[in-house]
Amino acid sequence: MSINIEEIKIYFQELQHRISQTLEKECKQAKFKESSWNHHQGGGGKTRILEQDEVIEQAGVNFSHVMGTALPPTATAHRPELIGRAFQATGLSLVVHPRNPYIPTAHANVRFFISEAPDRPPIWWFGGGFDLTPYYGFAEDCQHWHQVAYDLCAPFGDKVYPTYKAWCDRYFYIKHRKEPRGIGGLFFDDLNEWEFERCFDFVQAVGEGFIEAYLPIIKKRKHMLYGERERHFQQYRRGRYVEFNLVYDRGTLFGLQSGGRTESILMSLPPSVRWQYDWMPESGTPEAQLYEDFLKPKDWIHF
Amino acid sequence: MSINIEEIKIYFQELQHRISQTLEKECKQAKFKESSWNHHQGGGGKTRILEQDEVIEQAGVNFSHVMGTALPPTATAHRPELIGRAFQATGLSLVVHPRNPYIPTAHANVRFFISEAPDRPPIWWFGGGFDLTPYYGFAEDCQHWHQVAYDLCAPFGDKVYPTYKAWCDRYFYIKHRKEPRGIGGLFFDDLNEWEFERCFDFVQAVGEGFIEAYLPIIKKRKHMLYGERERHFQQYRRGRYVEFNLVYDRGTLFGLQSGGRTESILMSLPPSVRWQYDWMPESGTPEAQLYEDFLKPKDWIHF
Repeated sequence: MSINIEEIKIYFQELQHRISQTLEKECKQAKFKESSWNHHQGGGGKTRILEQDEVIEQAGVNFSHVMGTALPPTATAHRPELIGRAFQATGLSLVVHPRNPYIPTAHANVRFFISEAPDRPPIWWFGGGFDLTPYYGFAEDCQHWHQVAYDLCAPFGDKVYPTYKAWCDRYFYIKHRKEPRGIGGLFFDDLNEWEFERCFDFVQAVGEGFIEAYLPIIKKRKHMLYGERERHFQQYRRGRYVEFNLVYDRGTLFGLQSGGRTESILMSLPPSVRWQYDWMPESGTPEAQLYEDFLKPKDWIHF
Repeated sequence: MSINIEEIKIYFQELQHRISQTLEKECKQAKFKESSWNHHQGGGGKTRILEQDEVIEQAGVNFSHVMGTALPPTATAHRPELIGRAFQATGLSLVVHPRNPYIPTAHANVRFFISEAPDRPPIWWFGGGFDLTPYYGFAEDCQHWHQVAYDLCAPFGDKVYPTYKAWCDRYFYIKHRKEPRGIGGLFFDDLNEWEFERCFDFVQAVGEGFIEAYLPIIKKRKHMLYGERERHFQQYRRGRYVEFNLVYDRGTLFGLQSGGRTESILMSLPPSVRWQYDWMPESGTPEAQLYEDFLKPKDWIHF
């Protein structure tokens, strides 16, 4: 059976459309604006951004399909067989930065990579996942988020959720802070161990799962009242998001190194951020609770 | 003649004291607070932070003297002879983020590195420099800044200023934005081509030069009135500062990789920052002028 990249692109674009619509419905008045762009080596993308809404301060949903003649160093470091090979990559990547500090920031990504060469089988894989970054922790939200992840993985085997959940915890880890970025979810890469159709089915389950996991949390938290204190803490914690994305995130570094469109790559950065030297929450506060009870990898399913 | 690291440390600490005092005098009421810290492999440092003043929103002046048993990859990439060798590094690093958008952000650094091994000559060098990042450009400020740099280099040879000025322009360059971080100044590294005393004299000239270059600019601009618009633009441009420091800055990456004290390394990050998707200044505005007339490497001496 042959691999049809068009089929994947169509799904990613349709998912982009559906996620944008879903998020818009939760907003007060803001709408997504779309910009199309071309990649210097071929291909391009569509970036949709929603800004300055009362509910969502900034959301970016980016579809891309880019071609390249040679992979950047971040991509070939562990795959010497790919050095110098042409490739195509397509993906959907999104980050939602709500204004209300009681709604967590969410990130999701699905992607497909293929490198074809004459007279050799193509090298391909899928990657993706979704993860949640709360500012104020609610155990029931975290359990719901992970339950959706668990349920979508179940049809693909018992080991899928625990493996990809653990990978997510390892990946979204801010080494210099010795802190996870958030409460995790799923992360996978290099997925080609099943046949193509099954891999693609799984990726679609992840795409659908993201909406199912996040939407109820937005709905439940968006009317909660907050003040300067919560907003301040949210902006402070967003600094960690910036640190992770610029220092460690492979997608960000791959994009910047391969001459990707900077504004589409850095749409993941939060709209307003604070750093404050040596700040620590007072013990016994909800802010301290985030560090103590939520920013520690744990089993949210058998909680 | 032997190399006395104590002598260098004493100068760096004395310079830290003098720069802190000088900055405090320009402030409305805030004072520097000092924290001392230890490095896990030996040594430590003193971080001085001043926060939330009407004139200076945040300034950090960090002295450190750390020992290590083996260098991190960032340091040995181009120096294989150092792999696995113990080292000592001492330095003074400072960043000033004024609140008034008409005062530029300033950065300065002086540092000394030495690796001693039995029966072999020590490997040592100095590095450092200073650079300026304006939000609103004033040609006279940039000329003054570079004139001080030029004058302090002159006694050390005709090629010193042009070489280190060009190095600064190359170093403080945000590749993914195709933009310099600011209007430059001096940058040097691996300085050991002169004998030790002359190198140390030069480093001291850089330290003194920083105060002479920056102080008059603070004094001249700190009473200028500004509004939300200027503040907004400053916070937006500070995003570029974060991007540079977290993606490219060798000192930052060296520090984070070698298990340095995160809060002292990241004190360089601005206190409040904004990102806004695909924002560009309107043509004909002072904001557009920054990009057109100032964020382009140029000869500020023969202006």
